[in-house]
Amino acid sequence: METAERLIRSTQRLLWERGYVGTSPKAIQRDADAGQGSMYHHFSGKAELARTAIERSGTELRAAAEEQFAGPGTATERITLYLARDRDVLRGCRIGRLTADPDVLADPVLRAPVADTFAWLRTRLAEIIAEGKRNGEYPDRLDPDRTAATVAAVLQGGYVLARAAGDDAPFELAVQGLVDLLRGVT
Amino acid sequence: METAERLIRSTQRLLWERGYVGTSPKAIQRDADAGQGSMYHHFSGKAELARTAIERSGTELRAAAEEQFAGPGTATERITLYLARDRDVLRGCRIGRLTADPDVLADPVLRAPVADTFAWLRTRLAEIIAEGKRNGEYPDRLDPDRTAATVAAVLQGGYVLARAAGDDAPFELAVQGLVDLLRGVT
Repeated sequence: METAERLIRSTQRLLWERGYVGTSPKAIQRDADAGQGSMYHHFSGKAELARTAIERSGTELRAAAEEQFAGPGTATERITLYLARDRDVLRGCRIGRLTADPDVLADPVLRAPVADTFAWLRTRLAEIIAEGKRNGEYPDRLDPDRTAATVAAVLQGGYVLARAAGDDAPFELAVQGLVDLLRGVT
Repeated sequence: METAERLIRSTQRLLWERGYVGTSPKAIQRDADAGQGSMYHHFSGKAELARTAIERSGTELRAAAEEQFAGPGTATERITLYLARDRDVLRGCRIGRLTADPDVLADPVLRAPVADTFAWLRTRLAEIIAEGKRNGEYPDRLDPDRTAATVAAVLQGGYVLARAAGDDAPFELAVQGLVDLLRGVT
């Protein structure tokens, strides 16, 4: 694998595990088995490398979500498949965890791919819920933007609860509870 | 205010803003206007001070939540009051944000008050939902543990979405969407 690619993947992994504040250029170079000169040949510094890594993670998250969103089934079925798909729950969300990073939020360039990813996710979920309304699956009074935000929040909050407990169970409960509520209004 | 108390409050604030990884003993001493000797007179180090600060934050979170939980009203009304109470949304949750901190999760002593706070919250919400079932507000099929986890997750995930957007709006949408779903099954 090319050095630049190794640097991006190492940064993706380290941002996921330790966040931006906790990831040093040295740690990235060590993980990627790249020298300092090589890193600064490809990237102007930690910030540019992080932006590239966050954008990559956002693109991967969208592609993974689209696998369930674009599939067959009712809106509730597709949302359930998305929420309940095989996830490494205790690692949490690569994008969501960055919102705990003050340096990411303070830098518009680093925050943009985080904001864009969740804006995309909420828009996509709202489209699916609006489809469900048109098909008569959901009642007219259901607001797609609200419900979409609730679905995205349950996923992110489920990770928080699971990581707090050191156990997947609260994540699974939160997802099942949401699916119960969605079925309840069907 | 006593030095020990100033140290605890500074640590609470710094953990909230910058997390455990991003908070140095020096930063705590500076914020608390306390010397290094004074800090180590009261606490064995950053870990003990952090444990005390996290426990304090957990106690405060419970007391604040109990104000809405113990009040009058139906289950949905009390849950709505809890979710929609005046919050500094963009600061996020003091306890929840610690789940993004690998050093907090790796240390059982630091993780315990985080785990306990969310375990308490989910138990308390499940009690309120079980009350709502007994009063005929919710259908028999509603599972209190699942729904409680969903409510707690929406709050934590709502913070993540709002911080990503740099705007309270996604938090408000997620909460309204959950309240709509709870009312939908009433």
